[in-house]
Amino acid sequence: MPFKSLLSWILLFSFVPYGTAQQTPAANAAPKTLIGYTTESSRDERQWEQKFRELPAPDQLRENMRRLSAFPHHVGSAYDKDNAEWMLAKFKSWGFDAQLESFDVLFPTPKERVVELIAPTKYRAKLQEPPVAGDPTSSQAQQQLPTYNAYSADGDVTGPLVYVNYGMRDDYDQLERMGISVKGSIVIARYGAGWRGIKPKVAYEHGAKGCIIYSDPADDGYVRGDVYPKGAYRPKEGVQRGSVEDTYYPGDPLTPGVGATKDAKRLAISESKVIQKIPVLPISYEDAQPLLAAMGGEVVPEKWAGGLPITYHMGLGANPAQVHLVVKSNWDMKPLYDVVARIPGSTYPDEWVIRGNHHDAWVNGADDPVSGASAVLEEGRALGELLKQGWKPKRTIIYCVWDGEEPGLLGSTEWVETHLQELRQHAVMYVNSDSNSRGFWRASGDHRLERFINDVGRDIQDPEKPQLTVWQRARLERIARAPGAEERGELRRSSELRIGALGSGSDYEPFLGHAGIVALNLGFGGEGGGGGVYHSVYDDFYWYTHFADTKFVYGRALAQLAGTAIMRMADADLIPLSFGDSADTIARYVKELETLLKTEQDKQKEVNQQLDEGVFEATSDPEHPTVAPKREELPPFINFAPLENGSAAMKRSADHFEKALAKAQERGAAAYSNSAVQKLNQKLIEAERAFLDENGLPERPWYKNQIYAPGAYTGYGVKTIPAVREAIEQKKWSQAEQGTQTVGRVLQNEADLIEDAAKQLETLDQAK
Amino acid sequence: MPFKSLLSWILLFSFVPYGTAQQTPAANAAPKTLIGYTTESSRDERQWEQKFRELPAPDQLRENMRRLSAFPHHVGSAYDKDNAEWMLAKFKSWGFDAQLESFDVLFPTPKERVVELIAPTKYRAKLQEPPVAGDPTSSQAQQQLPTYNAYSADGDVTGPLVYVNYGMRDDYDQLERMGISVKGSIVIARYGAGWRGIKPKVAYEHGAKGCIIYSDPADDGYVRGDVYPKGAYRPKEGVQRGSVEDTYYPGDPLTPGVGATKDAKRLAISESKVIQKIPVLPISYEDAQPLLAAMGGEVVPEKWAGGLPITYHMGLGANPAQVHLVVKSNWDMKPLYDVVARIPGSTYPDEWVIRGNHHDAWVNGADDPVSGASAVLEEGRALGELLKQGWKPKRTIIYCVWDGEEPGLLGSTEWVETHLQELRQHAVMYVNSDSNSRGFWRASGDHRLERFINDVGRDIQDPEKPQLTVWQRARLERIARAPGAEERGELRRSSELRIGALGSGSDYEPFLGHAGIVALNLGFGGEGGGGGVYHSVYDDFYWYTHFADTKFVYGRALAQLAGTAIMRMADADLIPLSFGDSADTIARYVKELETLLKTEQDKQKEVNQQLDEGVFEATSDPEHPTVAPKREELPPFINFAPLENGSAAMKRSADHFEKALAKAQERGAAAYSNSAVQKLNQKLIEAERAFLDENGLPERPWYKNQIYAPGAYTGYGVKTIPAVREAIEQKKWSQAEQGTQTVGRVLQNEADLIEDAAKQLETLDQAK
Repeated sequence: MPFKSLLSWILLFSFVPYGTAQQTPAANAAPKTLIGYTTESSRDERQWEQKFRELPAPDQLRENMRRLSAFPHHVGSAYDKDNAEWMLAKFKSWGFDAQLESFDVLFPTPKERVVELIAPTKYRAKLQEPPVAGDPTSSQAQQQLPTYNAYSADGDVTGPLVYVNYGMRDDYDQLERMGISVKGSIVIARYGAGWRGIKPKVAYEHGAKGCIIYSDPADDGYVRGDVYPKGAYRPKEGVQRGSVEDTYYPGDPLTPGVGATKDAKRLAISESKVIQKIPVLPISYEDAQPLLAAMGGEVVPEKWAGGLPITYHMGLGANPAQVHLVVKSNWDMKPLYDVVARIPGSTYPDEWVIRGNHHDAWVNGADDPVSGASAVLEEGRALGELLKQGWKPKRTIIYCVWDGEEPGLLGSTEWVETHLQELRQHAVMYVNSDSNSRGFWRASGDHRLERFINDVGRDIQDPEKPQLTVWQRARLERIARAPGAEERGELRRSSELRIGALGSGSDYEPFLGHAGIVALNLGFGGEGGGGGVYHSVYDDFYWYTHFADTKFVYGRALAQLAGTAIMRMADADLIPLSFGDSADTIARYVKELETLLKTEQDKQKEVNQQLDEGVFEATSDPEHPTVAPKREELPPFINFAPLENGSAAMKRSADHFEKALAKAQERGAAAYSNSAVQKLNQKLIEAERAFLDENGLPERPWYKNQIYAPGAYTGYGVKTIPAVREAIEQKKWSQAEQGTQTVGRVLQNEADLIEDAAKQLETLDQAK
Repeated sequence: MPFKSLLSWILLFSFVPYGTAQQTPAANAAPKTLIGYTTESSRDERQWEQKFRELPAPDQLRENMRRLSAFPHHVGSAYDKDNAEWMLAKFKSWGFDAQLESFDVLFPTPKERVVELIAPTKYRAKLQEPPVAGDPTSSQAQQQLPTYNAYSADGDVTGPLVYVNYGMRDDYDQLERMGISVKGSIVIARYGAGWRGIKPKVAYEHGAKGCIIYSDPADDGYVRGDVYPKGAYRPKEGVQRGSVEDTYYPGDPLTPGVGATKDAKRLAISESKVIQKIPVLPISYEDAQPLLAAMGGEVVPEKWAGGLPITYHMGLGANPAQVHLVVKSNWDMKPLYDVVARIPGSTYPDEWVIRGNHHDAWVNGADDPVSGASAVLEEGRALGELLKQGWKPKRTIIYCVWDGEEPGLLGSTEWVETHLQELRQHAVMYVNSDSNSRGFWRASGDHRLERFINDVGRDIQDPEKPQLTVWQRARLERIARAPGAEERGELRRSSELRIGALGSGSDYEPFLGHAGIVALNLGFGGEGGGGGVYHSVYDDFYWYTHFADTKFVYGRALAQLAGTAIMRMADADLIPLSFGDSADTIARYVKELETLLKTEQDKQKEVNQQLDEGVFEATSDPEHPTVAPKREELPPFINFAPLENGSAAMKRSADHFEKALAKAQERGAAAYSNSAVQKLNQKLIEAERAFLDENGLPERPWYKNQIYAPGAYTGYGVKTIPAVREAIEQKKWSQAEQGTQTVGRVLQNEADLIEDAAKQLETLDQAK
């Protein structure tokens, strides 16, 4: 950065002090001077961004999708590698310094699969998805990966079938109330309510010896809408493939914490903690219906009934349905091909702004992941154009297209583990996307990026409602969907849209959870498609171009949105983190935890009182008896003070930081050294990492981030401040106590770093 | 009543002052001295009641059901009359002064019924319920009434089919938001969410020319449980017959307000306001599926999808399903046979305590109504036994078994209208029952009977949980089902269970709504059966004895409960009304009305604000566009002061009355005249009637009760303080203003009467 612009950025910086809500009309547009920019650098940036946003083209996005989804391209397939090489060539042609990074990972594929009903009637599941007339790629049976769950245990088991609804932990609480044990049984769970890998895990923990997962038409089939090919929803033969790798850590099962390079030290398969302990296999609802119809025992609770035209039963009873389940895999090592393409930074080459989306699919994967990957490619093409026109990003930009996301975020995790030290030192932000469709803007991420991404959203035009920005439309959608007046009031008062916290489900996880890099996940949805062909052979170009973002205008919007975010972060003078948003959000989490404990105490107190009163005995129908819940001691009170002190300290420092910025602006022209700003940015990067604790979570040491983690029993869903939240949920009281200490320290450390940053900001003009 | 006992009742009366909650353990038992009794008369009463409760016998109840449900016995059928004559003979044999009272009513029966899909495919509905193997009465096709809706219009219409969910008014709001008009269409609505007669009424109001109602398996078919004969739920061919008489008034359509005696002045059929304006016919889900599957247009909103294995569509669209609907009836007059059996009162023969249940059914009607009617007969037999043993009720007891309830409460309404003046003068209470099953005690009624019926419930042992009374079990069930801590807290603090308010759905309506007699509706349920054979040929002895109260122990409990209530009211020295409960409940209703208006104001304000913000335009999916709701002026503020003043006055008087009772007890022995107590009881009866306003409700003059009425647009569901509540709901603001004046006067009048009663009570000892 030249000296003159350095001078002027502090002079004219236009920060919105935290907590001072802008008037809503003004908030509809991004601030005139971008946060982290001077008036001058902001003007330049806006011109380049404007040029950039004119470049992504729907036809090109369509062509990207057609090419990438033309054949099945799962990990280890020929077309997976072909795609990677094609993308590599593309990035090179656009002027990126691109390469393939390869890893060797354990990726089991089906050798034997059997699901058969052997009593009281017989039925052998087809386990096949037939081609659909008119859909050319649905018939590529030779290249298709059969329907299965990767990282199932091998097994050949026979037992009575028990219906466990979604197979989540609260479903087993209900089973217990009904006096039903799954011990020695094979459970059948429907897809939904949580990540699929939780279903066999919890089934095993309750003594089941096998697990069948099926797609119920109530969840993504004919109950939701017309089925493919008439409509977007799951046809009767459609099966959801998917990984069931356990939540202990993501990535290659054999190389936790280290990159799965050729020479990496590997666990034996039997040593890996992330392979399921029982066999598990997914089936279609056509295959599930005979099994479910054959089941006896009690009728299921009202909310457990799915959409098949039968009465759902729990199983067991007088004449139990017996099922034979066989899963055997080829436990092979397969190569991954990550595409990694760099534009070196002109001013701060050691500060990295990273963008990614995966390219591997379970089959053709037009929606998942190609709808997102196509946008990544189109961003790459457009940035290449800008480079030709003379644009020079200040920071290094790294575009990544990951392999092996589907089996367990393999490509991104191995890359992050391999480059962990560099990333911790250099990475400024990671922006992820995955499936993308038509509708409303969706953003989740680290809350230190909340204001930043709000401002980006204010600059993107909605394709269907061109009079609105995607930010405005998302805000109006939230008002429409708000559950009550309180939420609507907050939406109307605030100048920002709150972003959601990230759990897991795509490649942001290793960046945020393991490396402590602020991350975002971006996309559009809510109008197109639905999830009816998810992870089936029908998620293909024909489906996407008939039912999802058929004009590729939301693909263009995604490219504009994510590309603008990358450019704006890469070109900023000062890294635009909003510590105030983060402090505010963490204070809410602390309140949530206090409420959670109170709720658990009240719940157990109520159970104990009802036991005293005889409520359970009185309401148990003698013809369908229920079992009273257990009497337990009330959850103890926990010392939340470390969290409250940490959160308060963070709030104070964040306020100080915001004030320092405002004052710096008031002080007007002064002389700051380039190196002082660079030092401040380094401090901000250090503050990003401060959510990490090297010991990780109490029972999942791979997860270092103490604010954000996917739940051990949700899989996708986030557990914020997980060391405390999950301990309370799992009634591990001393762990919860330790958690408040650990997270309190983390928050205090973050507060100290923000305080340092604020002081540096105050004395920037003395540091020449 | 002999002088001595009169002296002692005031001496030893043990009233629980209103608002003084008894400790819960004490509340589990009825008070030692019954309310309205002296210690001595209470002891006598308890002995007789105890004897009574030992008499009802499950085998006898079973035999009653077998006999009454042996053949179809709808209005006008041979077996309907045969049953009436059989019951008449029974009551006579038990020592009752019994007679049949007959009326002539309009009761249409099917002449022609057609439902056929004519485009895009063809299907002709079967409209038939086949016999079930093993169920002997299901094959009595000759005597069965075909499936139809009584009081449908005659018509032969063809038009496009539109799905309207449950066909209630809020469903049409949703249709409007989707831009769908039913004008010129035939609507198909599923049973549920409100009374069936509302569906064609609202369809007609929106311009439809025909209405089909079907039973969706999600509501009472296989989604809920195994279907008949494997289980209790509706089989695919099962059809719900039923009346669709409009809510303008109940009873014979041709004789509103007067008894349908031979010589009554009758309206022409065309003049009657309660016959539907369009043809309407019920069908099974087997007949509905081809129709629903043929429909095009938009996919229905998520909550509108039923349980058939199809994607539900709204209809219309590019290739609309066309339906031909024909309904023609024989518009015949039929005789009704009410069984009316009296035990004359020994002390107060002019004070009548009335008990009733209907005997007519749509077909065999084992559940509806015979499960309740069997108990009425068994009560009659048991009371006959007591008479033989020397029991002499103080008041006149009248046991009624009504004909013609199913078409529209015909038998009870015509009887009440015929005897209106006597009933207004003499009736003390009406106790109703109808279908009865296994499970938990249910009681609804006028809140001036709340304490009375709570105490009765505390004396009935639960058949399945013999360590509990039905009152205790119902209380524990309510604790178990309570939505939150607040409701549980109230249940735990209170010595009484709140009873529900009565709308319509059985024969209590003319007593409460037209004659102003305090009424109760009693029964058991929640464990047996479900509603799966309701109004079908399968509601028969075989079904009931396999799936409902199979041991007839809840039939016995109902006989014990209702019989005890009748005895206790008939024998009481002082009519045990609890004005405090009523005042408390009415105060809650007034608060509800204030909240309702506020909610309507807030709702419209929010709609208008969202219109200003562009929320509806922003969230309308261009591929599935929606229509923004209309901008309307905010509902005006309403003067609730008359209600508040009336309610407060009632509370003051009720408190005074309770205190006067407590003081009377303190004063100890004194001399009261028999005639003074009789005068006080007459005042209490006058107070019962004070909820009436002779002008009736603003748009339904037949409904005189200003506190309780069924909703004009709910049918079954109650609208308390209907003149105000329905006016607010229907945005008739000046009517609402008038309503608060009218009801305010009614409450003030009631307060004055209670005040008079309190004063009489205070001066009883001076009135010798």
